[in-house]
Amino acid sequence: MKKIVLFVEEVYEDLELWYPKLRLQEEGFQTVVAGPVAGHIYTGKHGYPCKADISFKDAASGSFDAVVIPGGFAPDRLRRSLDVLHCVKEMFSKGRPVAFICHGGWVPISAKIVKGRKVTGTVAIKDDLENAGAIWMDQAVVVDGNLISSRTPADLAVFAKSLVEQLK
Amino acid sequence: MKKIVLFVEEVYEDLELWYPKLRLQEEGFQTVVAGPVAGHIYTGKHGYPCKADISFKDAASGSFDAVVIPGGFAPDRLRRSLDVLHCVKEMFSKGRPVAFICHGGWVPISAKIVKGRKVTGTVAIKDDLENAGAIWMDQAVVVDGNLISSRTPADLAVFAKSLVEQLK
Repeated sequence: MKKIVLFVEEVYEDLELWYPKLRLQEEGFQTVVAGPVAGHIYTGKHGYPCKADISFKDAASGSFDAVVIPGGFAPDRLRRSLDVLHCVKEMFSKGRPVAFICHGGWVPISAKIVKGRKVTGTVAIKDDLENAGAIWMDQAVVVDGNLISSRTPADLAVFAKSLVEQLK
Repeated sequence: MKKIVLFVEEVYEDLELWYPKLRLQEEGFQTVVAGPVAGHIYTGKHGYPCKADISFKDAASGSFDAVVIPGGFAPDRLRRSLDVLHCVKEMFSKGRPVAFICHGGWVPISAKIVKGRKVTGTVAIKDDLENAGAIWMDQAVVVDGNLISSRTPADLAVFAKSLVEQLK
């Protein structure tokens, strides 16, 4: 059974974590939420709680079929964790789907995997993505190899659809 | 294109509205959110905002391929609206999917459509469903004809899957 890790931190964008999580479960895949502390509950930007199943450290040493990085301001914290960055780099180099949405793009920037790649994200981090060498596109979803990215919660349907298709 | 109406009111359960809404959009269906006042924004139990596209009155005179009733405490208000009940009764009598989850079951109780039917819902309203003549079952999803019901947000993946299957 395919296993997908989703990263959580305080002020994550509620639907950007929960929609892909439930959608992947609907497909019969196993989802694992990784946060700073296993068992701790993190609160979404709008207030939805989400418990971390495993820690970032566990994620760094684990094996997954894809990774999902939600937005909100959680990515501002996620990108500071060497364990998170290690996990994302590993997934990227193994050619497994790395999906990020909205401010989620900050993490692949810090994992140094976006240079020369087509991506999207909230317009607020367009400059950060471009300064990291990425080609930012104004599309609901951008798929470039194993990188899947979207702009905002309004793009969640196509974002999840692309991820599911790539996992099948 | 199929058109599905979802009811919203204050204190709706955030994911119980948003997961089916986005999932139906992913499938290419049109979703329409009906609330007391068109254009007004309602706040989820955990804080997620949701704008009503149309009013209950519009929903009562509209034509839809399915209806979704989320939980939270929104159904306590929804069941008091004659327009909501009229819409639900119409959908039921036309054999179109009527999907409800958690406390959402209060609405079909007041629409008087559950007698003799197998349903589920949060254990908190088991007595209300049984007193209305329904057969309550402890299952993640119960499908009895065009009635589709689930217990809690933890059942959302199978709830949405059953609804999508019935719409296809």
